Amino acid sequence: MKKILLLGAGRSATVLIHYLLSNAKTFGWHLSIGDVSVHHLEALLQGNTQARAFVFDVQDEAQRRAEIGGADVVISMLPAMFHPLVAETCLALGKHLVTASYVPPQIKELHPQVAAKGLTFLMECGLDPGIDHLSAMRLIHQIQQKGGTITSFKSFTGGLMAPESDNNPWHYKFTWNPRNVVLAGQGTAKYIENGTYKYIPYPQLFRRTETFQVDGFGAFDGYANRDSLSYREPYGLQGIPTMLRGTLRRPGYCQAWQVLVQLGLTDDSYFLEDPAHLTYRDLVESCLPAADTGKSLKERVAAYIGLAADSEELRLVEWTGLFDDLPIGLEKATPAQALEKLLVPKWKLNAGDKDMIVMLHQFEYELQGEKRNLTSSLVVLGDDEVHTAMAKTVGLPLGIAVKLLLQGKIQAKGVVVPLQPDLYEPILEELEQHGVCFTEREE
Amino acid sequence: MKKILLLGAGRSATVLIHYLLSNAKTFGWHLSIGDVSVHHLEALLQGNTQARAFVFDVQDEAQRRAEIGGADVVISMLPAMFHPLVAETCLALGKHLVTASYVPPQIKELHPQVAAKGLTFLMECGLDPGIDHLSAMRLIHQIQQKGGTITSFKSFTGGLMAPESDNNPWHYKFTWNPRNVVLAGQGTAKYIENGTYKYIPYPQLFRRTETFQVDGFGAFDGYANRDSLSYREPYGLQGIPTMLRGTLRRPGYCQAWQVLVQLGLTDDSYFLEDPAHLTYRDLVESCLPAADTGKSLKERVAAYIGLAADSEELRLVEWTGLFDDLPIGLEKATPAQALEKLLVPKWKLNAGDKDMIVMLHQFEYELQGEKRNLTSSLVVLGDDEVHTAMAKTVGLPLGIAVKLLLQGKIQAKGVVVPLQPDLYEPILEELEQHGVCFTEREE
Repeated sequence: MKKILLLGAGRSATVLIHYLLSNAKTFGWHLSIGDVSVHHLEALLQGNTQARAFVFDVQDEAQRRAEIGGADVVISMLPAMFHPLVAETCLALGKHLVTASYVPPQIKELHPQVAAKGLTFLMECGLDPGIDHLSAMRLIHQIQQKGGTITSFKSFTGGLMAPESDNNPWHYKFTWNPRNVVLAGQGTAKYIENGTYKYIPYPQLFRRTETFQVDGFGAFDGYANRDSLSYREPYGLQGIPTMLRGTLRRPGYCQAWQVLVQLGLTDDSYFLEDPAHLTYRDLVESCLPAADTGKSLKERVAAYIGLAADSEELRLVEWTGLFDDLPIGLEKATPAQALEKLLVPKWKLNAGDKDMIVMLHQFEYELQGEKRNLTSSLVVLGDDEVHTAMAKTVGLPLGIAVKLLLQGKIQAKGVVVPLQPDLYEPILEELEQHGVCFTEREE
Repeated sequence: MKKILLLGAGRSATVLIHYLLSNAKTFGWHLSIGDVSVHHLEALLQGNTQARAFVFDVQDEAQRRAEIGGADVVISMLPAMFHPLVAETCLALGKHLVTASYVPPQIKELHPQVAAKGLTFLMECGLDPGIDHLSAMRLIHQIQQKGGTITSFKSFTGGLMAPESDNNPWHYKFTWNPRNVVLAGQGTAKYIENGTYKYIPYPQLFRRTETFQVDGFGAFDGYANRDSLSYREPYGLQGIPTMLRGTLRRPGYCQAWQVLVQLGLTDDSYFLEDPAHLTYRDLVESCLPAADTGKSLKERVAAYIGLAADSEELRLVEWTGLFDDLPIGLEKATPAQALEKLLVPKWKLNAGDKDMIVMLHQFEYELQGEKRNLTSSLVVLGDDEVHTAMAKTVGLPLGIAVKLLLQGKIQAKGVVVPLQPDLYEPILEELEQHGVCFTEREE
């Protein structure tokens, strides 16, 4: 019996757990699930002799070593900051590791030791990073194998709401860590376009969008991710004239978010003075020059940002409650933390809400002197507010990878990112059986 | 004979050195001057038996201890990052210390030990910080002593050019560390206005200016410094409804600088890709969305920022050479470093150039139910490009403070900032003899 240890059983782990449980009998697996709280798993696991859940504290070295030591493969869905700790223990005890997170430098440098022990630490095997790599590499190799030269690759992913649950003016709800959504894009976005490096400072990011259409699902705005350049080498696209990776939102979102950025409300670098005695209205007042008499707060914000008070942007901002006499109610808060607290109930998934993952790859390439365009798009809808599209697209690649690993079908040793055919072929194939299918269009 | 050790003999130290040398005979002082290079002092000190210059490496512990050990008082004009090291050695060897820099936390915490040894570490005794404290505290105490209640205090300082040397469209040249000028204002500016805390994010800072008139010298624009709030307590102004400290520039500067900020050219947080092969024109291209055909680079920048191509802002930006095919010529550079290299020759002091220091305090206070305004302004002109107004206003308070200290006239022990009458009275009085005089106007 192969023993799987899953660390972290939050919102994004639901589909992974179901996948592992449903395959446990067939393949003879035992699943142990550790998290800070496991109450939500009790009903699911009751009477199941091939699975157990336990309260887990990653900082407890004895427990960490005992649990990892008893496993054949470890899946970590803990917050990314804990992965180096988990990886070191896996290395020390000779266990495989699978995660859906970016490879941090502390894990990257373990590569020779991991390889020397014949272990596989498969990282970046969720949605983004994960399915983006798998699907991009399949297309890149297809184009290259028929002799094409790729001149432009733009790739965007968004975690959004399915049309039937898309019922607020931002067309957005939280299906991911709210803090990360509020802080998204901070830093400088870097990409390359027509051979020119491009840099977008954060204050300009949400006005520098590009609009895309996805058949049957309408329009999406994409804004650039922080680093599109570092993917050129692993993707084998050194020297490509245009490469951009980004995030999708529904039209309207980025333009309204830009108002919050310009006001300084996404700033996480300082603490507000005495937020316990402030309302959101006061917070907005703190972002503006001293009051002109006779104008409403909304009118003053509009004038400050250079928009009309009846603009769509201001309508979305007003909808959040930012102009209301609503107490912030935090003893200590950065502007970003105060904003997050305001948005969490507004952008909450309700019972029955279905989310939607959209991924879009756009290639331009030259084949026998001719310019070609290839677009590949993926839309995944959630079943409900628990079996979300996010949980499917993060969890299924992880689950499939673990299966391949336990079957001895992953040859790569060391710290591995899923870029090679022996990983992307079987994972993409099984994803299709689960309804995670890309649609391609050549022009 | 009292021994004075001056560490750091750069551009801002010229007037201090002259002050100390001219007082050495009268008061029986010996002056030792240490810096990484002292060639520029050879002619000045030749044949002077009461002064010597020597090559000094602050990191050389043996030399540091030997030189500090032989002094009665140490003046540090080294870069502020070295002050904790100098302070620790002064404490260990029982020597007084005087600087023109802000008190860093590592020095603040030495206060009890410094006081216990009967030593005085007088910090923040230059221009800003320095003369700002001295002059503000004299006025605050005057208002309070006649029974007034201060409701607003705004204080601005600028290092600018005297009208006769003000001959570029920015009305600015470097009289201070160019890097600090390029990075000025990064972070979030915090102040309080009519009882409301105000926060200005960096991308909005240079558009949030206030204009002031100084009799005989015309108009100045002030932008907010990072932290105006922490001065309330040391100034005894807890509960004041309005308090703002800031920096002065000539009209036009802030509006044009805002263009550079919006483009991202003051960003010091990342390195450009391959700057050795870029021109400044390329750099601007990297800040813009992909080219619209048929428009000039200047027109595209204007459109991106939302200005007219023939606006004053664009004229100033163009004057820097930013739109020219001029190589950046750096192997490694952040945008801010590239911008600094462009501006250094453009904003260089020429032979005979005279600089100008402007300081402005604006008080509003209530006296017997009546509202009063008090404005106090200081304008100091440089003699030439060596005896600058900057060197006078930084060096003279330091020199006078050292004299008072050696005469036993400074009672305060420990880590001291010059806020009390026994410091501001004699220093301001002697400054007036050197032409550093404030002009007050009551309304």
